[in-house]
Amino acid sequence: MRAVDIIIKKRDGVELTKEEINFFIKGFTEGSIDNYQASALTMAIYFRGMTDQEATDLTEAILHSGDILDLSQIGGIKVDKHSTGGVGDKTSLVVGPLVASLGIKFAKMSGRGLGHTGGTLDKLESIPGYDISMSEEDFISQVNKIGIALVGQTGELAPADKKLYALRDVTGTVESIPLIASSIMSKKLASGADAICLDVKVGSGAFMKTIESATTLARLMVQIGKACGKDMTAILTNMDEPLGLAVGNSLEVIEAIQTLNGQGPKDFTELCLEVASHLVVAGKLANTLEEARKKLEAQIQNKEGLHTLANLIKAQKGDESYIYHPEKFSKAKYVYPVCATQAGYVSHIDALAIGNVAMMLGAGRSKIGEDIDHAVGIVLNKKVNDLVQENDCIAYIHSNKKDVTEEVKELQNAFSYSSGPIESKLILKVIK
Amino acid sequence: MRAVDIIIKKRDGVELTKEEINFFIKGFTEGSIDNYQASALTMAIYFRGMTDQEATDLTEAILHSGDILDLSQIGGIKVDKHSTGGVGDKTSLVVGPLVASLGIKFAKMSGRGLGHTGGTLDKLESIPGYDISMSEEDFISQVNKIGIALVGQTGELAPADKKLYALRDVTGTVESIPLIASSIMSKKLASGADAICLDVKVGSGAFMKTIESATTLARLMVQIGKACGKDMTAILTNMDEPLGLAVGNSLEVIEAIQTLNGQGPKDFTELCLEVASHLVVAGKLANTLEEARKKLEAQIQNKEGLHTLANLIKAQKGDESYIYHPEKFSKAKYVYPVCATQAGYVSHIDALAIGNVAMMLGAGRSKIGEDIDHAVGIVLNKKVNDLVQENDCIAYIHSNKKDVTEEVKELQNAFSYSSGPIESKLILKVIK
Repeated sequence: MRAVDIIIKKRDGVELTKEEINFFIKGFTEGSIDNYQASALTMAIYFRGMTDQEATDLTEAILHSGDILDLSQIGGIKVDKHSTGGVGDKTSLVVGPLVASLGIKFAKMSGRGLGHTGGTLDKLESIPGYDISMSEEDFISQVNKIGIALVGQTGELAPADKKLYALRDVTGTVESIPLIASSIMSKKLASGADAICLDVKVGSGAFMKTIESATTLARLMVQIGKACGKDMTAILTNMDEPLGLAVGNSLEVIEAIQTLNGQGPKDFTELCLEVASHLVVAGKLANTLEEARKKLEAQIQNKEGLHTLANLIKAQKGDESYIYHPEKFSKAKYVYPVCATQAGYVSHIDALAIGNVAMMLGAGRSKIGEDIDHAVGIVLNKKVNDLVQENDCIAYIHSNKKDVTEEVKELQNAFSYSSGPIESKLILKVIK
Repeated sequence: MRAVDIIIKKRDGVELTKEEINFFIKGFTEGSIDNYQASALTMAIYFRGMTDQEATDLTEAILHSGDILDLSQIGGIKVDKHSTGGVGDKTSLVVGPLVASLGIKFAKMSGRGLGHTGGTLDKLESIPGYDISMSEEDFISQVNKIGIALVGQTGELAPADKKLYALRDVTGTVESIPLIASSIMSKKLASGADAICLDVKVGSGAFMKTIESATTLARLMVQIGKACGKDMTAILTNMDEPLGLAVGNSLEVIEAIQTLNGQGPKDFTELCLEVASHLVVAGKLANTLEEARKKLEAQIQNKEGLHTLANLIKAQKGDESYIYHPEKFSKAKYVYPVCATQAGYVSHIDALAIGNVAMMLGAGRSKIGEDIDHAVGIVLNKKVNDLVQENDCIAYIHSNKKDVTEEVKELQNAFSYSSGPIESKLILKVIK
């Protein structure tokens, strides 16, 4: 078998066999197949696409390039969730504690990630003491004990994905649906859960700009997961505005706490309940989504979700008093209101632009290893379909630098207005 | 400017600017742009193609990656020819001496090349003493003196092409027309001639399988050459059988000598006269192709072409007596006749299969630096549209090894037959 023949086969639109895909990924991971052959193959895949079978084989080849977490020592059904990346997305901080409070095992490994704000782990590190590193043994023991753990990766999950993604990033093949699907799913499968709920963001602020492309991606990921024996759900959700009100690390943790207290923003609460309902059904604690949702709403009402979050923080050496006293979070030096430049109904809030402002304030990192500022960020005061008058406050900037002229301008430009309310829907589609 | 943005632009079907192409090729040649980015770009070009302007810019960028031969010290119009590679193609050995004998300057640098037989230089080295290495100064002085030189490369012509071709070869992008065109034309332009005649082979034995693809390639190369101020002609010629009768190194030189003596095979003589006529018109020694052809036929008649070949051999330290006494060429130990397996009109002779037999006999090289056997090869005894009876001799194998069972079988399989003559044309199209 020669790498060049596999490239030519894909280039000519012929389906690759499992053996060919395994040969290529194994060679690429070990270094016997060079980067320049991998980038040629991924570009050919960009143009030719992949069948479901090829994408599944690719996912499995990447999955088997590294460690696969063995969660068999955890009793019951283990669930996981994944979001394709949204601005203001702190869903794991609510969904995890909620389902765990019902007895479903939420064993999640996260990366730190790059982008507008830090990843879930960075957000949790807003709480003094929170420790994301843990041995596999302790990880399993904690999930068995309190039903939840949110830690950094142990072992080396899907190293081929890391290598391939870095290559795709500099050779123009990030935007290929089968490559995105196999990248996401190889890591999810390596994390060992039995049921996975995927949140695929759609819209100008998301990676998938249209419902069509998001549907294709979601459907493929569900197929791959099922082919590997997992219980799969994908939810397509609207990213035509940031999720919730808070964008920033500690600001988002505070919003998650509010949500677990029953005082979260409507859209964010709705998304958390939707994702969690699917996981509760997958975990066999409810027969229908309605039944699941009722149980989850009760866990908000009775504060069991909140207590589980506090237990999580405590188990991972954090100061759990922050959960009950969010005023303890360290605050940014300055809070500036941002005014509407015109009157009208808010019709769109450019999530990417809001993300950029968060980045400019120091909430995210552009390179691995960079420090981030946990306190800074944006809190929206208006959302889509809110009616505003000129000079109404539309958002607050939490900043540790005094001059935010640029940030204010960018934030104002992120808002669009129309003369009447527009049709807007958070949950666009569910794919099982 | 970033390499990845150029890749993405091409991937998305947007025309690249001259600056972008120059940036990429310069970076690639110097090593600041990596192989994996170049292979992604070439794969994107494979799928998206290139406009004439892009292909011209690419050719010029590759051209300027190395030395460009300055032939300005040679008086008059300098001509060159190029063939896309055929089996049994010894055209340069006849065309060069013929046009030079009329006073046109034929200053040609050749590579050794890989393939079924050696390149033009390897063929000439069948003559003892022939020296292909020469300083640029001596090269120019020889052309001024005797009108012709056939040497190996001096300096470094189009190093980016060498690097890019090696990469394309292992990443599945050899078969891209704009990449083929820029590869050929960058080297031709670096050789410094004023007028170039391209012989684009078409058919099962050639790189371009159809008239359509050959036309596209030829038209593009003519465009590129013209954009760079050259007088261009491309001839599409049939490769549904080997050119002439002889395939092998000294065997082909002998056939070239026979042709300059007026005793060459009909198809080969015809092609030589066609190519040479275009160069004579380009060299302004005739107004029409008919007038040019008459002059050339006279140079065969009066042996001036043959004498010029002898002068070339002598000037490059070879034993020119071989030209007048071809019986001097060292011969293969064995000559085996190959019999027809059936009766009928020969309808097709698979040139690639004949080339493979030559390779099996040792006439070509598969790796750079391999030795080749100048004496061995094949001499066809029948050509397309000849009527044969079963067991008639269709070809002779000249071999230095005793057992040629495999070669005989392969050669027999290379012949196809039909019940009547077929339509067959050597010169398919002329593109100017």
